[in-house]
Amino acid sequence: MLPFARVAIIGLGLIGSSIARAVRAEMPTVALSGYDADPETRETARAIGLCDDIADTPGAAVLDADLVILCVPVGAMGDAARAIADDLPADAVVSDVGSCKESVAKALAEALPDATIVPAHPVAGTERSGPEAGFATLFHHRWCILTPSEGTDPVAIERVSTFWKRLGATVETMEAAHHDRVLAITSHLPHLIAYTIVGTASDLEEVTASEVIKYSAGGFRDFTRIAASDPTMWRDVFLSNREAVLDMLQRFSEDLSALQRAIRWDKGDELFDLFTRTRAVRRSIVEQGQDDAAENFGRARD
Amino acid sequence: MLPFARVAIIGLGLIGSSIARAVRAEMPTVALSGYDADPETRETARAIGLCDDIADTPGAAVLDADLVILCVPVGAMGDAARAIADDLPADAVVSDVGSCKESVAKALAEALPDATIVPAHPVAGTERSGPEAGFATLFHHRWCILTPSEGTDPVAIERVSTFWKRLGATVETMEAAHHDRVLAITSHLPHLIAYTIVGTASDLEEVTASEVIKYSAGGFRDFTRIAASDPTMWRDVFLSNREAVLDMLQRFSEDLSALQRAIRWDKGDELFDLFTRTRAVRRSIVEQGQDDAAENFGRARD
Repeated sequence: MLPFARVAIIGLGLIGSSIARAVRAEMPTVALSGYDADPETRETARAIGLCDDIADTPGAAVLDADLVILCVPVGAMGDAARAIADDLPADAVVSDVGSCKESVAKALAEALPDATIVPAHPVAGTERSGPEAGFATLFHHRWCILTPSEGTDPVAIERVSTFWKRLGATVETMEAAHHDRVLAITSHLPHLIAYTIVGTASDLEEVTASEVIKYSAGGFRDFTRIAASDPTMWRDVFLSNREAVLDMLQRFSEDLSALQRAIRWDKGDELFDLFTRTRAVRRSIVEQGQDDAAENFGRARD
Repeated sequence: MLPFARVAIIGLGLIGSSIARAVRAEMPTVALSGYDADPETRETARAIGLCDDIADTPGAAVLDADLVILCVPVGAMGDAARAIADDLPADAVVSDVGSCKESVAKALAEALPDATIVPAHPVAGTERSGPEAGFATLFHHRWCILTPSEGTDPVAIERVSTFWKRLGATVETMEAAHHDRVLAITSHLPHLIAYTIVGTASDLEEVTASEVIKYSAGGFRDFTRIAASDPTMWRDVFLSNREAVLDMLQRFSEDLSALQRAIRWDKGDELFDLFTRTRAVRRSIVEQGQDDAAENFGRARD
């Protein structure tokens, strides 16, 4: 059974356009409408036939929808919700794809006090942005986390869950606050650290930018991929999930100081013990299909 | 012209066994001998026919060589050099593949005071270890850095340079001290940070190991790859390149504190500016062929 028949996507970047393509591939009878605040993105979306209709206002996009998914940076969720408030059908379910859930749930509930809201976070993405970066299989074998607040209509939760399963995802439900702490360590802190080290390397005087790039295959290049992610999206994530990110950052800094001390005082055993322990984590990730089993992420061997 | 006719490889892990395979592929007439301190590794090397001869002592492996390459962890270079000292032919060139060059050059010069030494560092690798992890194209399109000390026979330098070019690498020459600072930022610090964050994530009480693994596609999984690298090799690298690593770590920590402050005080512009700047670095790395142009490192789309 089709969970929704008329889906509106607000925000046509990497995630929004991937949802559109995945819906086309997996539920081809669904009527798809879309909107993006950027006129150029709307033009591109029309040119590549991303949806059945690309509207010129958010209201026009949602007029007829039974599911509205907000796919904008988390700092823009409140505004996006307010922009559809007057035209949202009473029986529509509203969802989103934001990487922080407490702040987004609050913003959506304030903007749409009478709507049925089921916040969601598909844990998937690439370093690319924009309507042409999306692809239909982005959510295959990835997790999608739902964080409905207490008292949400269970039928609506079930329909959103079915929707994501149809796109290839595995669905998990948890509290928004717990989600934000889990993602702070598995996604937000890794991005923050990657952005930092790429900045540190760029600012050195004695090592040239050209040297940093030439010798990046020694490890550095791995960090540049996530440090190439969308700046607006990530600025919003850090500001919206501030407390959890700062707490995880504090723990990371303490651990880094301990390693720094081990290096300074020649404590090789401490280093060796940690390095042996971390190896097992990689093994589990590969075993559970959350990363490529081939070495080097399956990068081409030549 | 063949730069060397009889090559001995001491240490048959990822790098040593990749050199053996690459020599077989690119210079098939070269006579290859090998040795590894681990009897099991020698057995495996024999079983897969890695070299023409796998010797049971380091001395026997180098008896007839015109090039000896030490492919052991940097902390074991001195011992490996001492172990071949008595049997090393007078006209043989000695090289190595260590990730730190000042400490290794010193250890080799002390152990082999009369030998012609041309230290080298091929900037290439994967997270795998051992004789079966190597492959012939590992050095294609990668840089190999030579750090000969002043007064080294230019003909020997030229021959080692030709050897690496024949294996598919591009060769650069620089001072050992500069090498160690460049690699501290492009390779050593990235590994240290990756090991740290994987450790931090493993030690959380409120977020389970299972959650860390399930939601790792949000960014964390990228770090687990290099945190799965060989523990002995990396322990040695951090202790051997201590000063440069501690200095780069200090700069990184300062930059991380600045970002922490920007998040705490809601300075979105500072975050946005950095995140925009780091994007360009990725672009250069891809343009210069130092990483996959496909998104997500070219990970399979399904």
